[in-house]
Amino acid sequence: MNVGFYQFSPAYGDPEGNLRRLAAALRSAAVDLLVCPELCTTGYLFLDRDELNAVAERIPDGPTCKALGALCREIGRSIVFGIAERAGDGLFNSAVLLTPDGGAVCYRKAHLFDTELNVFDRPGSSPRMGIVKGAKVGIMVCFDWRFPEVARALALEGADVIAHPANLVHPYCQDAMVTRSLENRVFSVTANRTGVEETGGLRTAFTGRSQIVSPMGARLAQADPDEECVRTAILNPAEARDKGVTARNDLFRDRRPDLYGPALGGDRRSKG
Amino acid sequence: MNVGFYQFSPAYGDPEGNLRRLAAALRSAAVDLLVCPELCTTGYLFLDRDELNAVAERIPDGPTCKALGALCREIGRSIVFGIAERAGDGLFNSAVLLTPDGGAVCYRKAHLFDTELNVFDRPGSSPRMGIVKGAKVGIMVCFDWRFPEVARALALEGADVIAHPANLVHPYCQDAMVTRSLENRVFSVTANRTGVEETGGLRTAFTGRSQIVSPMGARLAQADPDEECVRTAILNPAEARDKGVTARNDLFRDRRPDLYGPALGGDRRSKG
Repeated sequence: MNVGFYQFSPAYGDPEGNLRRLAAALRSAAVDLLVCPELCTTGYLFLDRDELNAVAERIPDGPTCKALGALCREIGRSIVFGIAERAGDGLFNSAVLLTPDGGAVCYRKAHLFDTELNVFDRPGSSPRMGIVKGAKVGIMVCFDWRFPEVARALALEGADVIAHPANLVHPYCQDAMVTRSLENRVFSVTANRTGVEETGGLRTAFTGRSQIVSPMGARLAQADPDEECVRTAILNPAEARDKGVTARNDLFRDRRPDLYGPALGGDRRSKG
Repeated sequence: MNVGFYQFSPAYGDPEGNLRRLAAALRSAAVDLLVCPELCTTGYLFLDRDELNAVAERIPDGPTCKALGALCREIGRSIVFGIAERAGDGLFNSAVLLTPDGGAVCYRKAHLFDTELNVFDRPGSSPRMGIVKGAKVGIMVCFDWRFPEVARALALEGADVIAHPANLVHPYCQDAMVTRSLENRVFSVTANRTGVEETGGLRTAFTGRSQIVSPMGARLAQADPDEECVRTAILNPAEARDKGVTARNDLFRDRRPDLYGPALGGDRRSKG
């Protein structure tokens, strides 16, 4: 299975231009799955809810999903990308997985970051997963990295690969995603954006360094902070299904929910 | 609050010699809390249960705990160290926190690694905590790092500092403990041993690089792979009680157990 990320600097408030770039990247990348940044159809720094509403789209029948979905069917590839989602009166920071069979899996970010709370609604999704070439692909978005429960929940539900669209502004996440891969023995693909965005006096710089990490914590591919690029790696999903770390240790069988306490799924009566 | 680690190479099967070294380190270190490696009273590579049983001790009334407890009372310092514990017929890979008020908190490692499963019993402890100079000190041991639930459970129960005795043989944990500190906004003190141990044809090399990490993921102190040393840092426990990462985000209030699923404490009915 060939997986890649597309690191670029989406144009603020230009869904049509960003769609052209996403389509070109998907067409040119020799991958089964391409992971793209958070909110890469719209840019990030929304000044208010009206401005967000003007560029938000429905899933799966908005223009970006329809166009990329048709391309996935045409060329037999899958894509995960972050998108501003409109659903009824709701506006969500979402990511969607589109597959060649016409499937669309939508995940709404569970942990909104900072000013996102001013403009997006906050219901969030439980683990969301789709199948690409027989591999289970789970989705998390940007700041979800800071909560170990998100990657853990995806892995416990069988994810082989975690697709992780991001708009990272701090330097910590890339190393932490190595830990997420190690602790769950899953592949992770963090597609971060790059560049600087300035809207209405706000200015944010993004940290790039998108990466693909193996279940053993090895970086199989990584971008520089500033470049726009596609990078790819060949993954064997079977590596993520073997949770063994020694002949006697299996990361899932060795879990001790009986000791973790009720806040983490433990037996409410036991106190080992 | 002044915290340190003591990185050294314990002598196999020599509790008296190791006790002398622990006492000397505690006496000479200008710290409120000294964290020492896993199983540092005995060494690590037990060939069988009889050999382990010969050097295991009771907690708190075995010779090592009695001597170090008296020293803690005398000089007003606290220590965490790994010890082979005998309790009835049971033998446990434990760590104990001794405080100047005569307190002894014992934690039994929840996740035994590889050949430890041949000789130690495996009940494990739920989160264990003690108070040092007003700070809550939680305990985890070595391979517990690989399970995010352990540090999470300690932090959710209020730990300001995680004391982490270790006998690490792989290179991953030190970076992962930066993630543990970041995701929980707690201090962590990993006291790893160094050196090589050879018993009965088995040979294991330990990776050193003990460290003290801040709630923001900064390494406040770190040892080299091979040196024997005490390193210290001044910690302000209040930094670990503020879980805010932006004006709008708090790492604990932002948790979404309703979305994590029943395996991680979620509502068994909800499916967001």
